[in-house]
Amino acid sequence: MTRRILLKVAYDGTTYAGFQRQKDKTIPTIEGALDSAVSALTGEEVEVIGASRTDAGVHAHGNVAVFDTASRIPAERFARALAKYLPEDIRVTDSYAVAADFHPRHTDCVKTYVYHVYNADTPDPLRSRYTAFTDHDLDVASMRAAGQYLVGEHDFVSFCSVHTQAQTTVRTILSVDVDADGGEKPRGIRITVRGTGFLYNMVRIIAGTLLEVGRGRFRPEEVAAMLEGKDRRLAGPTAPASGLVLEEIRFAQDPRIVGSLQTVDNSQAPAMP
Amino acid sequence: MTRRILLKVAYDGTTYAGFQRQKDKTIPTIEGALDSAVSALTGEEVEVIGASRTDAGVHAHGNVAVFDTASRIPAERFARALAKYLPEDIRVTDSYAVAADFHPRHTDCVKTYVYHVYNADTPDPLRSRYTAFTDHDLDVASMRAAGQYLVGEHDFVSFCSVHTQAQTTVRTILSVDVDADGGEKPRGIRITVRGTGFLYNMVRIIAGTLLEVGRGRFRPEEVAAMLEGKDRRLAGPTAPASGLVLEEIRFAQDPRIVGSLQTVDNSQAPAMP
Repeated sequence: MTRRILLKVAYDGTTYAGFQRQKDKTIPTIEGALDSAVSALTGEEVEVIGASRTDAGVHAHGNVAVFDTASRIPAERFARALAKYLPEDIRVTDSYAVAADFHPRHTDCVKTYVYHVYNADTPDPLRSRYTAFTDHDLDVASMRAAGQYLVGEHDFVSFCSVHTQAQTTVRTILSVDVDADGGEKPRGIRITVRGTGFLYNMVRIIAGTLLEVGRGRFRPEEVAAMLEGKDRRLAGPTAPASGLVLEEIRFAQDPRIVGSLQTVDNSQAPAMP
Repeated sequence: MTRRILLKVAYDGTTYAGFQRQKDKTIPTIEGALDSAVSALTGEEVEVIGASRTDAGVHAHGNVAVFDTASRIPAERFARALAKYLPEDIRVTDSYAVAADFHPRHTDCVKTYVYHVYNADTPDPLRSRYTAFTDHDLDVASMRAAGQYLVGEHDFVSFCSVHTQAQTTVRTILSVDVDADGGEKPRGIRITVRGTGFLYNMVRIIAGTLLEVGRGRFRPEEVAAMLEGKDRRLAGPTAPASGLVLEEIRFAQDPRIVGSLQTVDNSQAPAMP
């Protein structure tokens, strides 16, 4: 009797080479740390499957990983029990049993990313780990207007790093919101992007483009031409990884198995991964 | 012709053994980093004098350091020019010339410290570097009431680590404010303490005591008895260094020299210790 357990994972990505495990196990990754922690706790050799392969330096409050286990540890206990096997900059904030065939990358979902900007005359070392810094005067209303051109189903090839291996560059963005702590520097600015899927570096290129709009290098309506032009060189630069947080992944159908059904026979389930 | 230059210094104290330079130069300190940066920039052998010797792991937005230099670099340029000689977690946010006899520890001032608490059911790795975590239900109104007993001139020996070398343990606190982001978890709570001087670990012991009041271990009025009892064991624990930020130091008289008087002969000034 094995169960599939879902972990909600928060991490400070600063010192990691991204989410995805690497062949060279000495390179620190979030997935590698989760593998080690779950294996140490259960005594099984476990490789987790992540929902979102965040890039080097990108942070998360709500990434998701699943794994199969024959251990008898109650599903809800994993979150707390894993703490002592994980480094302090990775925390499992929730855990529960899911259907044996639930795969976090093959299930419809809405992802929410927040890009954090610190807009001031001088950098603040207490913010540099979790924000991008800019001293430019930024027109937040223009940034907000520019973001609306991205909402909907579009070919986002202009907002995707050339290294992508995606089969299609069409994606759907549900909303782009820009809010600021105040009207002038120093202030925090947050760019919140919700969508059903994202290309490589897409949110960082959106953030980099909106920042260029904010300082007046592009007019908001030029974003429509960037999409139509289908050329990465038309959009703005890729904003730094430090500012990006994967805030939440919401699955179209809640995968949680509740009540007494927490132990599920998944011997017939498709092999991982 | 030497000038005395004041630096306003911000830093993430996480990886430093405190502000004060140590005999063993391989131990990282804020003062050591400033000495190296100013020496590299000016070509002189400089030892800065700090206003506040913050503890290992404590952060600052507004600590102050001064040094004497014969260099001809305009005073206002030091802030930006030092950036390339400093690690990213230390930044000089302002610089200007001050009177030749200005000493930042022998000048009346008001210091503002902010202690940051993250109050939630699970720790957040994106906050742990700059907050203390607690999952207890906290009564913020009680914490606020408790803080008022500390305002005024008191013997704070009960709120001072036993290692103090201070000649007197009488200090004056001007205000203690407690504010919260919301009424329930998860939320941030800030304890802001303003005073004219502080003993070793004093703000962290105040924070630790107010957190114990918040969770109901002490009633607010018991803080008066802690002061009267003059015994460290009566107060609460020392809260972790990670939550503490030295926010601002405001000198009773603005030490800034303005206008064309930025080059001052201080050959008659008292020697720096």
